[in-house]
Formats: sequence, structure tokens, C-alpha cells
Amino acid sequence: MLGNFSYCNPTKLYFGEGAVKYLNDELPKYGKNVVLIYGGGSIKKNGIYDEVVKILGENGKNVAEIAGVMPNPTLEKLYEGMQIARAAKADFLLAVGGGSVCDYAKALSVSVHCEQDPWEKYYLRFEEPSCETLPVGCVLTMVGTGSEMNAGAVITNHKAKLKIGHVFADEKIMPRFSVLDPKYTLTLPHYQMVAGIYDIFNHICEQYFSGEDDNTSDYIAEGLMRSLIHSSRIANKDMQDYEARSNIMWTATWALNTLISRGKSTDWEVHMLGQAVGAHTDATHGMTLAAVSSAYYRHIMPYGLKKFARFAQNVWGVDPSGKTERETAEAGLAAMEDWMKELGLVMRISELGVKEDMIEGIADSTLIMEGGYKVLDRAEVVEILKESM
Amino acid sequence: MLGNFSYCNPTKLYFGEGAVKYLNDELPKYGKNVVLIYGGGSIKKNGIYDEVVKILGENGKNVAEIAGVMPNPTLEKLYEGMQIARAAKADFLLAVGGGSVCDYAKALSVSVHCEQDPWEKYYLRFEEPSCETLPVGCVLTMVGTGSEMNAGAVITNHKAKLKIGHVFADEKIMPRFSVLDPKYTLTLPHYQMVAGIYDIFNHICEQYFSGEDDNTSDYIAEGLMRSLIHSSRIANKDMQDYEARSNIMWTATWALNTLISRGKSTDWEVHMLGQAVGAHTDATHGMTLAAVSSAYYRHIMPYGLKKFARFAQNVWGVDPSGKTERETAEAGLAAMEDWMKELGLVMRISELGVKEDMIEGIADSTLIMEGGYKVLDRAEVVEILKESM
Repeated sequence: MLGNFSYCNPTKLYFGEGAVKYLNDELPKYGKNVVLIYGGGSIKKNGIYDEVVKILGENGKNVAEIAGVMPNPTLEKLYEGMQIARAAKADFLLAVGGGSVCDYAKALSVSVHCEQDPWEKYYLRFEEPSCETLPVGCVLTMVGTGSEMNAGAVITNHKAKLKIGHVFADEKIMPRFSVLDPKYTLTLPHYQMVAGIYDIFNHICEQYFSGEDDNTSDYIAEGLMRSLIHSSRIANKDMQDYEARSNIMWTATWALNTLISRGKSTDWEVHMLGQAVGAHTDATHGMTLAAVSSAYYRHIMPYGLKKFARFAQNVWGVDPSGKTERETAEAGLAAMEDWMKELGLVMRISELGVKEDMIEGIADSTLIMEGGYKVLDRAEVVEILKESM
Repeated sequence: MLGNFSYCNPTKLYFGEGAVKYLNDELPKYGKNVVLIYGGGSIKKNGIYDEVVKILGENGKNVAEIAGVMPNPTLEKLYEGMQIARAAKADFLLAVGGGSVCDYAKALSVSVHCEQDPWEKYYLRFEEPSCETLPVGCVLTMVGTGSEMNAGAVITNHKAKLKIGHVFADEKIMPRFSVLDPKYTLTLPHYQMVAGIYDIFNHICEQYFSGEDDNTSDYIAEGLMRSLIHSSRIANKDMQDYEARSNIMWTATWALNTLISRGKSTDWEVHMLGQAVGAHTDATHGMTLAAVSSAYYRHIMPYGLKKFARFAQNVWGVDPSGKTERETAEAGLAAMEDWMKELGLVMRISELGVKEDMIEGIADSTLIMEGGYKVLDRAEVVEILKESM
């Protein structure tokens, strides 16, 4: 059943090689004071920083910088950025980087003029902004999170051992525009590329594995998964294959810009487990998802058997003839695991630094959500984490 | 190869039973003078007119009306509407109806303040508006055209025997919002329902049948086609099945809101043929497409054999084992034709009123486009039309 919903996603996307030139069309729409936000400095090595700074200069902008946004952006870093943006009287936030940098820019957008503590307001009470928010633009250099076309922002609070994402309700929080140049992603190390690919795949799964109906969203999700599996195998053999990388980039955007969740309930439980692992290990996001997925999906499969059997057939091409529904479903998960291993994904949380004595703490950090095939209890969370070791 | 492109679709959609109430959120954003646009008056019988007029009143709007917009809106009707909208000093155009009414509202949006002749400017010279345009909102009561979330507007000039669509470049021409209530579509006659379903299917085909690559857009297109085939079979048996009708409605929107053409060239040649038939017969749009499709696709199949074989397998579940690529491709088209007959679509243009002596005239009205697997010559157009008799 396609439930009632609204949909609005006004982010303008400029896709393709050389698309950064469209900054010249977009920047004049915003005020003079721009805060340029980026990560560890790889954009200084590959020339993207110079290119963007040149365009900002040609458009007469005053530029302040927030550098060093880390892969799992922290609350402390958010507080630091709020000071910088306030001092610069920021009119516009330009994120140049991957999902973490985009997420950070959106978290900053709702925090700069916020008089309350943003962690408490947005991440503990899940409130919407009651202050002015700043427009955000993105130049994407890594693929996976879909942050370039949604209103989500994940922040990590190391003191509280919590990594929490808030998807804001107002489409104004979505980037006003994003530049998607697949060439920018070609220099990424293999580990980051495949982690991003699994992040994309899991975004689709998180929205696909709920409901027993014949929702159009699930058919679109299957198309996206098939495209991703196809292109990931090409990119895994040849990381420089522009066509494969461009299709992966485009799939990532549509995997998490709200389209495929329309009319559905979702629980995002793999992300809850993965984010808890991330909060305790600071491991790469996509790898934390990969490392808990196998145990999680095998655990919930009996509660959504029909959908897992459909997944096996429509996504992995499993032939159901001569198989029980359960055997078909299991063959689908086996095919998924084979593909994950083929890509070189991390399949065990122990490989990400989790020790036996951390399991209880990670379980404490795991939010338990409703909306999927099975609402986990704490004992099941511990069991899945142990299975993932 | 996913070519360079931009994407922006800011239309806000309110989907589901009772969604018309969201007019109360949208109307206050626009000026006081609203022109209400509708078709033959069925909305007066089913209560939608009263509901909308009541909400307009509660929002303090001055309402002028353009009634009687016909299934293939004419240039004369456009001229008439321009006078009404100018006299009313229109601030906002509210279309309540199907694709023709939405198309008409968009054509009106770019014409009210246009000092040149809109036919010559937009439909012969394909120029973009150089005047102020009026914002448009839609309440959709028929499904098929996708007009509720795109910038396209088809107008028929009977004197010139031309039916031409213009997809405007500026996303401002897209409806600002659209209300999609599947309940509104339940009263439609079977003929209109299945014509709409084929219109949707053909929109997807028009964008799918080009290119030899592994573009993500084609995978999304396959998902949409599979969803549509599935739901259309349910709706064909039980027109009151809300779930099937709602999935059809949602598929229609995504079939033609630019998403699945991103990075691709397209020729829209079935629409060129069908629109020429429509200009000479005034037949229902979806039926004109259905009646030329079989001959057209069998004609171009050899030029895009690989894609037609993929279509057979991924959309229709044809098993390729023991078949040549051509046999697989043919089995796919046969499956499509079986489905069309199952729905009760018109398979011959002779059934739409075309006589042998009209063929040359229809060929004259058929625009020949580039971007697909085969650029037709005039003799091929005649041949396809004769095959379709």
C-alpha cells in the first residue's frame, strides 16, 4: 500500500565532467560572505580547492574557511564551525567534499543562528529549526551518502558515544545545488570507493526491506540495485572506468533523496547498528554497515520472507524453481554476500577494531527503530553484534 | 555513457486520499487573483469542483474560470484563455483535470504576458519565454501524461493540422505543486484508464529505447515498467483497486518528469507519429500511441537489437536460453503486444478513424526526430502508418 506522503526535492544538480563551472551560475544568487567547508585536504592535492577558490574570487566573494571536517563530523567541530560562520557573517555555505562535509554544512546551516544547543535540539529532541537557516551548496568529491540531494545530517558525539542522523523536514535544508563530477571520484582509494558503494546499496536495502505490498518505490529500488551491482563490478576491476563511476554516482543520489521511501515505513536498523559501531571505533561508515549486514539480514529474513525471496529473484536473478521460499531467500542473501566479498568489503566488526568487551557498550549506543519487519530487542542487538564478530 | 546534464524538479507533490486539503498550505503563497481551469465538467459531477471552489473561497481568492479545456487543447482555446487571464489580472493558474488541463495551464502561463504569438514563438520556433510567467498549480484527476511534474505543454493547431509539444527549459514553468489523489481517478471510464496506462508505458519506452550503454536511467525505467505492468493488470480486472491505481498514478509522474532521460538522447518518435494521428482524428492520445507502437517498434528493432533483447528479459521476463538475440527481442515485443491486447488498447489507427487517403497527410504532420536507434525517412513513416492500419 502506497501510503499518503508529500515529495519535494528542489536541489539543482549539475552532473558530468567539468560541471564545477556552473558555480558561476549559482554563486551570484547568494550573498557575498561564503564559508568554504572541506575535509582533510585532499582537495588541495588534486586541484579542486584551487579551482573552487578561483571561481569564488571571480564572483567577488569574501571567503572564510572551515578545514579539517573529519569523516564522522563531531559535535566539537560543529561548535567550532558555528564560531567561524558567525564571525564571517556567513551568507552561504559551500561544502567541497564527500557526505561528511555535506552533512556538516547542513548541520551548520541550522546551527549558526540557533540560540539553543544544536545537539540537544536537533539530535536528542529531533526538533526542526526555529531560527534562520543558511543556504548550502555542494561540490561532491566522494560518492555514497546521498547527502548532496537530501536534508539529512549525521553528527557524532564522542563524549556521549552517539552518532545520530537527523533528516530535516524542510526542503530548504537540502543543498540548493550540487555539482557532481564523476572525475573527482576517480582518485579515491579502493577502500573508500567500495565502502561508498556498500553505503549506497544499504541505503536502498534500508528502504526496500519493509512492507508486503507492490509499491512502485520497491520496483525503482530494484532498478537502482541492479544498476549499482552492474557498475560496481566494472569499477572494482577498473577504478578509472568513467561510465561505471558516473552511474554509481548517479545511483547514490537517487538511493537517498527520499524518492524510494515514498509511501513506505522504514526502520534504518542497519544504520543504527553501523552508526553505533562507528561511534565506538570511528571506522569508515560504509564498512560498519557491511560488517553488520550479513548477521542482521539473516536474522530478520524469516519475518519478511516474501520480500527476501523477491529480492533474490528480482535483484540477484536467483531461479526459484525447485526451491522453497526460504531457500530462494537464502540464495539471495548468499549472492549478496558473494558480491560483498568480491568487492573486498569488511565482513566482520572485529576487523574494524571491535573487541568482545565492547559489544555491550555498542548495544547501548544502538537505537532500536520501528517500521521494518522486526523490531529488535536488546538481546537480539547483542546477538547480531556477536554474530558479526 | 551517462552524458553531462542538469536536473532540477522543484514541484511539490501531495499524494494520497484527501490530499486536496494541502491547497490550504499552498494558496496563501500566491496572489489573490486565481484562474481556475478545467475540462468538460466531470469535476462538477464528482464533487471535486465544489471542494476546490470552497477552498479557494476560504483562502479569500478572486476566481475567474476557464472551462471546457478539451482533451487536445487547441490554439483557439489558448487565445481565449489569454483574454480571460488578462482581464482577471491573474496571479495564479489552478488546473483541475488531467494532462490536457495541466498542459493548457502551462501554455497559458507563458502566453498571458507574451507580446508575440505563442504558437509561432513556442511551437514553431521553440523559443523560451521572454516575458513574466504565471505560477501554476495542479489538482490531478486523470493519470498518464506526467504533466503534473514537468515543464511540457502540448497544443493542437487544427488549421495547420499540427499537434506539438514544447518542454520548456526553465523549471519555473513546472507546476509549483500538484495534488495527486488516486481516489479522483477511480471514476474514469475503462477506455480512458487504459489509454492513460499506455501513455505512461510509452513515455518510459520513448526514453528507454536509445543508447547502447548501461545507464542507471535505463535500470530505473525497467523498474517503472515492471511496476506499471503489474499494477495495470490488477486495475484492469478491478478498476476500484486503490493500491493499483495509486501505484499507476505514482509511476506516471516519474515516467515523465525528466529523471529517466538524464544523460540520454531521445527521439520521442512514437509521440510524433501518435500526435500526427491525433491532429487528424482528435483521438485519445494514449490510443494513438498504442495504435502505432507495434509497427514502429518492429520497424526499429533491428537497429537497437541489443536493447530490445534486454527489454524482453528485464521487463517481460523472457528466457533467452536457446534463442538468438533477435528471437529474444521479438518475444519481448510479442509479450508487450499481448499485454496491450489484454488491457483492451486500440491496436490499429483505422479503429481511430484513419482512412487510407489520410495517410499522406498524417505523414506530412509527423515530425521526424533524431536521437533514437533510427532516424526515419518519409517513406518509412508512410510504411509504419500503413502497417498500423
